[in-house]
Amino acid sequence: MNSDCGASRLAVMNYLNEVAGDYPSAISFASGRPAERFFDPQVWIDAIPFYLQEFCREKSVSAKQAAFDLAQYGRTSGLINDLIAGQVRRDEGIECYSGRIVVTAGCQEALALCIHALCPRPNDVVLARNPTYIGVTGVADLAGVPLVAVNTESGEDEVQALDRTLRTVIADGRQPRALYLIPEFDNPTGSVLTRAEREAILELCARHRVVILEDSPYGMFRFEGERDATLATLDRVGSVIYLGTYSKTLCPAVRVGFAVLPETLFGDAQASRDLAADIAQRKSFLTVNTSQLNQALVGGVLMRESLSLERIVEPARQFYASNRDVLRDALDDAFGSEEGVSWNVPTGGFFLSLHLPFEFGVPEMTQCARDYQVIAMPMSFFSLDGSRRNCARIAFSNVEPDQIRAGVDRLSTYFKRSLARSS
Amino acid sequence: MNSDCGASRLAVMNYLNEVAGDYPSAISFASGRPAERFFDPQVWIDAIPFYLQEFCREKSVSAKQAAFDLAQYGRTSGLINDLIAGQVRRDEGIECYSGRIVVTAGCQEALALCIHALCPRPNDVVLARNPTYIGVTGVADLAGVPLVAVNTESGEDEVQALDRTLRTVIADGRQPRALYLIPEFDNPTGSVLTRAEREAILELCARHRVVILEDSPYGMFRFEGERDATLATLDRVGSVIYLGTYSKTLCPAVRVGFAVLPETLFGDAQASRDLAADIAQRKSFLTVNTSQLNQALVGGVLMRESLSLERIVEPARQFYASNRDVLRDALDDAFGSEEGVSWNVPTGGFFLSLHLPFEFGVPEMTQCARDYQVIAMPMSFFSLDGSRRNCARIAFSNVEPDQIRAGVDRLSTYFKRSLARSS
Repeated sequence: MNSDCGASRLAVMNYLNEVAGDYPSAISFASGRPAERFFDPQVWIDAIPFYLQEFCREKSVSAKQAAFDLAQYGRTSGLINDLIAGQVRRDEGIECYSGRIVVTAGCQEALALCIHALCPRPNDVVLARNPTYIGVTGVADLAGVPLVAVNTESGEDEVQALDRTLRTVIADGRQPRALYLIPEFDNPTGSVLTRAEREAILELCARHRVVILEDSPYGMFRFEGERDATLATLDRVGSVIYLGTYSKTLCPAVRVGFAVLPETLFGDAQASRDLAADIAQRKSFLTVNTSQLNQALVGGVLMRESLSLERIVEPARQFYASNRDVLRDALDDAFGSEEGVSWNVPTGGFFLSLHLPFEFGVPEMTQCARDYQVIAMPMSFFSLDGSRRNCARIAFSNVEPDQIRAGVDRLSTYFKRSLARSS
Repeated sequence: MNSDCGASRLAVMNYLNEVAGDYPSAISFASGRPAERFFDPQVWIDAIPFYLQEFCREKSVSAKQAAFDLAQYGRTSGLINDLIAGQVRRDEGIECYSGRIVVTAGCQEALALCIHALCPRPNDVVLARNPTYIGVTGVADLAGVPLVAVNTESGEDEVQALDRTLRTVIADGRQPRALYLIPEFDNPTGSVLTRAEREAILELCARHRVVILEDSPYGMFRFEGERDATLATLDRVGSVIYLGTYSKTLCPAVRVGFAVLPETLFGDAQASRDLAADIAQRKSFLTVNTSQLNQALVGGVLMRESLSLERIVEPARQFYASNRDVLRDALDDAFGSEEGVSWNVPTGGFFLSLHLPFEFGVPEMTQCARDYQVIAMPMSFFSLDGSRRNCARIAFSNVEPDQIRAGVDRLSTYFKRSLARSS
């Protein structure tokens, strides 16, 4: 059942990617890629010699030997763990040290390794909010680990829904091992968990010994207000694995991500060390070690920036914030007086949810792309049960302001004609 | 059973790695790493701008846009597939084109993806020669896919052993899906399959529709004689997936490997395309795509070298050949007159097998390291059934000639004292 569902989801994903490729001149709100204008590949490539220079000073080896060491196979858990720990402390406020970090070939590998390591038994399951990031769905499908949707029923808040779901899963004789979530500017919804929700989720997961996989690719892209404490910072019992990436802060091509394991796993320090060893072992048979060239690149940037990426992400953060404003204003203008159309105004990140008074699925997306030259992602694509049929994900991270205005205008034309046809 | 066996093997591996770490001043024949003196990281880093320059000329984009494209997320199957196809054609004589290639985060990822994709059902098994590369053992253990040893019984040659093993597996109601092998300068044994063996193995595997995973990390390091045709070249029915890596020819830190799929899978072109799509899908949920920076590095080198790595590997090849000679001569001097000691003289690669008249396991390895300051790997460590107890793997790729002489001298002292004690 799980794998059939996975196969059809994968087929839909391939189809959607093809649609985007088939209409290259359409304005696309589909891609959640970072804006490439803020990439600076040459600066990052220059960071490698900078890292090497510091590396050979610290290790008292020649520049030549340092370069040789870098070019060799490396430690499975990573080379720049201390620098990453420093950045996570400074930018995320998480108390962590290098021994708790496993450096991975992008954050997706960290997620895959954690789910495999946490769910070795047939009755182990992973929980996720619904809709959720397609990457966790894919990992669970391929690993054969059932992914259980946390669905809010009428009258429930998200915490009550989690509580009920956990009880139901356990009553069914299954073991909830992990809860996957993006607390800050969720992909696909753009939502943010409140402090009270975070604390209640931590408490529930601690009670049932469920590990929280806190994925935070967008945390540094807050547009206004104070940042909430991460779950890893609030964690008192050792229930959170924090997943990080440099794909959005630097660029995707560095392919460096990481997992920060808790000091103890529900109070057991040895259990956390065993889990770290298990994850490293799995990594050694998957990708051996994360490219030390790429780690040196990230490490060089981190050293140059005194272990904070705040300065580097600032122009991109401003661009995304401004795009969010343009999108909000365009939506107000186009749909402000329309019955049944609503959207959230995300306080950060790359995504916004647009709710429509009719179904927006694959046929509608295709029609939009073909006839109106605008592409939005059906939210049902990210759903674990085919729900969210009347909703679209609007990605505003990799599109120009004038395209946002024109794209919303086209969506509005599509919307009005669809309504006129249906009435 | 399989996972218990795997867990104990992993425990042994960790122990062996610790032993090597505990005696840093010992001469080590344990590491099968490439010799780092032939790495040229700066040249390779310079290859990135060279690749970009060619890339923007070919695509008619600005240098800036080319750099942005490179820094973004990329195609799951890879960016430099045409260049890799060209190199594989020139250096390996394999007729292949870019559409048949999946570029991976090192060859280990290619191996893991292939085994997962080929063995989705509970009764699917992988076959491997015994002893075999630890990487395939690890993948199979973690994937929960049984790994069946092809053991030669008395009077049998390797092909007869494979035939018998295939029949036994099928009679047991299991499906042999893949045969893993390193035909050229095998890790751990250093052996080479003859042309006749290759053809007989191809014929057997075609008959039973078993995919051959031909791993060839050492193929370019032949010391003498003509290179044998790869299995992929000899394949007439579409039974071979060729696995390649740039870790030994360039350096491990590039972390770029690849799989070359056959044109058809046992005559079925759609089946081969489906397998390629399945592998790419799995990769997308594991590492998203292989770092385009690293691909640009490899791509730049390949363009500069006119799609052949012959020139680049030549100094390393000569070094390994000379090390093999030094090792052979040292073994002749030390053990030539000893009853019961024998070794092969590999015609290429990184490894030699040393057979002893007594057991050489973990305690003996530890004793050697501690008391004689020389480290050799027990061959039983690479064995699928604990056999090969009287044998050691001697890696000569990353050790200096004078260390080889001194190391063999120490092994000889250890050997004589052990024999004296036991008699």
